[in-house]
Amino acid sequence: MSLPPARTLPETDRTRLLRRRQRGSHELAEICEVLDAGLVCHVGFVGAHGPCVVPTTYVRVDEAVYLHGAPASRLGRADGQPLCIAVTLLDGLVLARSAMHHSMNYRSVIVYGEAALVTDDREQLRVLAALVDRVMPGRAAQVRPPSPAELAATALLRVALTEASLKRRTGPPVDDPEDLDWPCWAGVVPLVERAEPPVPAPDLRGAWPAPAR
Amino acid sequence: MSLPPARTLPETDRTRLLRRRQRGSHELAEICEVLDAGLVCHVGFVGAHGPCVVPTTYVRVDEAVYLHGAPASRLGRADGQPLCIAVTLLDGLVLARSAMHHSMNYRSVIVYGEAALVTDDREQLRVLAALVDRVMPGRAAQVRPPSPAELAATALLRVALTEASLKRRTGPPVDDPEDLDWPCWAGVVPLVERAEPPVPAPDLRGAWPAPAR
Repeated sequence: MSLPPARTLPETDRTRLLRRRQRGSHELAEICEVLDAGLVCHVGFVGAHGPCVVPTTYVRVDEAVYLHGAPASRLGRADGQPLCIAVTLLDGLVLARSAMHHSMNYRSVIVYGEAALVTDDREQLRVLAALVDRVMPGRAAQVRPPSPAELAATALLRVALTEASLKRRTGPPVDDPEDLDWPCWAGVVPLVERAEPPVPAPDLRGAWPAPAR
Repeated sequence: MSLPPARTLPETDRTRLLRRRQRGSHELAEICEVLDAGLVCHVGFVGAHGPCVVPTTYVRVDEAVYLHGAPASRLGRADGQPLCIAVTLLDGLVLARSAMHHSMNYRSVIVYGEAALVTDDREQLRVLAALVDRVMPGRAAQVRPPSPAELAATALLRVALTEASLKRRTGPPVDDPEDLDWPCWAGVVPLVERAEPPVPAPDLRGAWPAPAR
């Protein structure tokens, strides 16, 4: 997915970075890079009984994040509701000499906005194809496209990228000077999400090549 | 962390599984296994400007989830607030013959509850040690323990595991019978989070053995 033009999003009461500001950014391109690297987001909303969080897939297209769900699901009925969308990538375990300076290396984006139901058929088709392609590039063109009944059974919601922020931590542990001689290892254990060899469906017919990710 | 005794949590208005009930569970031991396998949770709460989601580390000890933060942070000030905590483990990409049957294999736990500030010093020490040990087993005993000033600068919050549910998807794609001859590969691409070789801190003194994870 191509990145939008370089632009700094305005800070708002919700996206002002209150703590460790040096770890933050409001650059739209950096925010989009994190959104494009994640596969799952956590969507926060206020339900009938208080705060709710739902994990779900998403895709970023142009300057919006898209969510989808069955029209009767809580997300599918979120048209007009304020949402908070979080995408978090865990990059490493930060092991310091002191218990309290242990940390994680991460990249995290928070998006605030109102969900808007997508009613334009072409936008819906384009975004659903992007959702498939993001999981496996090029796949949307290979699979059986959505039928009118399937499209009607899918609520697609747009949240514009107008109010968002990024936070990240990188690099080694930061210990207090008096702890540097403490007798233990210190450093970072990098974490990566890897694809293992694909497992064909038991009912696969034909010798189609397995995808590489 | 040892698992609590086998017990089924009661279904409530918030944890009743509304969709795809066959993917769900309220078994406490299964819920704890997912909580113990994750490293990051997403905490939902209602802020001054609507729904908020914060990614953070956590640990499950006995029948509670613990979060921590600076006393002035939004989580650190959450004593008495209703929270929704989500832990999601992504296990695989499910590639079907039709766009609409694409899915993810995952394990996901949602916990609802009120945050309670931990005021007992021994509970605070024990849980902070568990937080370090979970990232790297045995490490809490090796590192410089928290000082009284550090403990005072750490708000620890307990959310009891009384209202929680699990959802998971496993296995191959489920395509419509009429799509089984569609000319493309179908199956699952398993995803795993792996630790890469540890990177020592640039200021590491002494030849301490690097941890194995």
